[in-house]
Amino acid sequence: MEDATRLERILRFLEVSDQLKTIERACYLTRGEGLETDADHTWHTCLFALLLHPDLARRVDLGHVLALLTVHDLVEICAGDTFGYDAAGRRDKPEREAAAADRLFGALPSDLTAQMREWWDEYETAQTPEARFAKAIDRLQVLAQNIFTHGRMWRERGVTEAMSRTKNRKSIDFDPWMAHIFEALYRRASQERLWGADPPTELDK
Amino acid sequence: MEDATRLERILRFLEVSDQLKTIERACYLTRGEGLETDADHTWHTCLFALLLHPDLARRVDLGHVLALLTVHDLVEICAGDTFGYDAAGRRDKPEREAAAADRLFGALPSDLTAQMREWWDEYETAQTPEARFAKAIDRLQVLAQNIFTHGRMWRERGVTEAMSRTKNRKSIDFDPWMAHIFEALYRRASQERLWGADPPTELDK
Repeated sequence: MEDATRLERILRFLEVSDQLKTIERACYLTRGEGLETDADHTWHTCLFALLLHPDLARRVDLGHVLALLTVHDLVEICAGDTFGYDAAGRRDKPEREAAAADRLFGALPSDLTAQMREWWDEYETAQTPEARFAKAIDRLQVLAQNIFTHGRMWRERGVTEAMSRTKNRKSIDFDPWMAHIFEALYRRASQERLWGADPPTELDK
Repeated sequence: MEDATRLERILRFLEVSDQLKTIERACYLTRGEGLETDADHTWHTCLFALLLHPDLARRVDLGHVLALLTVHDLVEICAGDTFGYDAAGRRDKPEREAAAADRLFGALPSDLTAQMREWWDEYETAQTPEARFAKAIDRLQVLAQNIFTHGRMWRERGVTEAMSRTKNRKSIDFDPWMAHIFEALYRRASQERLWGADPPTELDK
């Protein structure tokens, strides 16, 4: 690829990126028996952002949020999807994903390598309002998708409300409007009894 | 839904939108035997826009382009995907899709109905630089995806270069950089002999 033209490098990257459409996640779809893919999830987060950003207490640059969301899961082409409650898998997730980002984005022309890496780092470090909102949307979409599919994944994998709340704490706290949405969804999940069972404790034995 | 809260309406819309992930298109994926879905395609167009906008001769607002792309195929949830070379299906496509937009976006709170309809109309009428670029990206992704998948769909459905060029004329003419990319892809498709056969003429009989 040393002598590849700028366009050849971009097209090769876009071709490899097609693989995001076949990386399966843990969530189900509302139609059929299939699992959601990373590309599905990514598109859906962009739609969530379009519809939810106007009611935030703080202003965010929507276009910038959409750019962050579009790239946020791309490294999973190299690093794979790590289930949200896979403690062992999550331990080395930052290193695996940073190495994947180097490899994946490094194939682009250098200005685009820098831009993609900048967006991905901004999302991962979550210091700007746009990155914090994008991360909160990423979590909210997972919660909503599991409710839309009647908690099937939660029950199959034993995910409880407490586990979900621990994971989503920063996203809930990001903004009053996001907190309102998370709480509405938690209420609905409880009312519809969608959560997985708590693991047995000593008292159950 | 008359008494549904703002949030309930938005969540219901996001749930229905999940169906975009199971609407199949004509294009294949690079991995496996599956077809691309509308959600796959939409996400991929956003990534194309991220990587291709910096080299345009004219400036476009990237964030605005990403918003247009995120919503551009949503109406297919109600209207279905129409194959690009289905002349009969395309004849009533504008009416079918406008009715679908009324029905689909009309379920949102009124300010969001107006905003979604405004983005969709802007994309469809393609008068602004952002909408013209978004449309050109929509076409370019299809051309590239068929090349990434070795022209399988073109050969199965008898799509020729002439048919593709007619369809893509406005997109090719939008900007010198886009023209350069389209021509590079047309060259590659010819060299790799990816096109479908022209239908037999009188001379072949």
